[in-house]
Amino acid sequence: MESCNVRIVLVAPSHPGNIGAAARAMKNMALSDLVLVNPRQFPHPEASARASGADDVLAAVRVVRSLPDALAGCGYIAATTSRDRDQYFRVIDVREAAPRLVAASSTSRAAVVFGPERSGLSNEELESAHALIRARGAAVPTSAPLAAPLASAEEMERLYGHIAAVLEEIDFRDRTQSGTHLMGRIRRLLQRAELDQNEVNILRGILTAVQNRRRTAGGATR
Amino acid sequence: MESCNVRIVLVAPSHPGNIGAAARAMKNMALSDLVLVNPRQFPHPEASARASGADDVLAAVRVVRSLPDALAGCGYIAATTSRDRDQYFRVIDVREAAPRLVAASSTSRAAVVFGPERSGLSNEELESAHALIRARGAAVPTSAPLAAPLASAEEMERLYGHIAAVLEEIDFRDRTQSGTHLMGRIRRLLQRAELDQNEVNILRGILTAVQNRRRTAGGATR
Repeated sequence: MESCNVRIVLVAPSHPGNIGAAARAMKNMALSDLVLVNPRQFPHPEASARASGADDVLAAVRVVRSLPDALAGCGYIAATTSRDRDQYFRVIDVREAAPRLVAASSTSRAAVVFGPERSGLSNEELESAHALIRARGAAVPTSAPLAAPLASAEEMERLYGHIAAVLEEIDFRDRTQSGTHLMGRIRRLLQRAELDQNEVNILRGILTAVQNRRRTAGGATR
Repeated sequence: MESCNVRIVLVAPSHPGNIGAAARAMKNMALSDLVLVNPRQFPHPEASARASGADDVLAAVRVVRSLPDALAGCGYIAATTSRDRDQYFRVIDVREAAPRLVAASSTSRAAVVFGPERSGLSNEELESAHALIRARGAAVPTSAPLAAPLASAEEMERLYGHIAAVLEEIDFRDRTQSGTHLMGRIRRLLQRAELDQNEVNILRGILTAVQNRRRTAGGATR
């Protein structure tokens, strides 16, 4: 049964027939881990009818009460959206998502999350996702303009300088890494996030707040 | 000349002929912004010969002494690599990179960085990049296993809880956003980074250090 380490999560499905259809489609793709978050009706004869042969998938369904419960133990999480792009999330198409899910599922369980039929996933529900999968097919070009300009290379360098200064002020030493290597890890992870200017400003505001609070805490700074 | 807002950066090219060939290829693609970091020989007759008609691109070349100088003013930065995958960087193929560069260049200049012919870019030089472009062509599948497991959904939730606690302790209020919205922005940007378990541990170590230093600074904590 565990031929592929990918979980399918349906959030608040309205129509039990859709649950059965999802189980059927999963069986075709050798998937077997289906989790339902607050389904309106389940089990239901219509789910069983639409599963048509995927009864084993349906029999193994788990029903949970919250999305975090559904995602327990999952690493990479992709959420479906009808948006072509989004200011804050990475939006990918199905062709990009498939190899990413396969790669991620080699080290931990990956999940694909679908929202209620009518409304889709809420903004809060999207927040667990690493990327959004455009549910409208792969034909939409990804070259739409960005909503906010990325931070410039100089702004990123100033951010890294600020981080290094705060790490020094709080005397942070990572036990497993040298200082240089530590900043390298931090740089790489923040580069991957592709920060826009607002996000850099938020992070620098937090760094400044850390510095100020330490300074007003009574001469703890050197 | 500024038909496309993408800069090409060649780091320490050895052979002037390659500079000319790059200019020629750029002109074919309506690119005109070529920056050289410490070229061994430039200008050079061989560069002009290989440019064959792209003299305007060659005439506008800027020569700088460091990669940060070459990247000044750039937003999205992609660096070429011969690696198929990397533990820390996002590795994409040319097909994925092209629309991303076009999209990013709508709001600020984007850059593609090439390393020296023999050695390629150093690790330090790669650190400015948002993604690495596989230089070996688009045929390599991206479904290779990840080097390190992604942090689980629960580990990410604990990280966000820790961040929220520290923001409260340092009394950080973003002037432009409500507290909920602020945590949403932070979540989204860190989700995009696709953190592995080590990276979550590093960030939580830093958060703990911020808390400890404040607490040992003499009762500054509530």
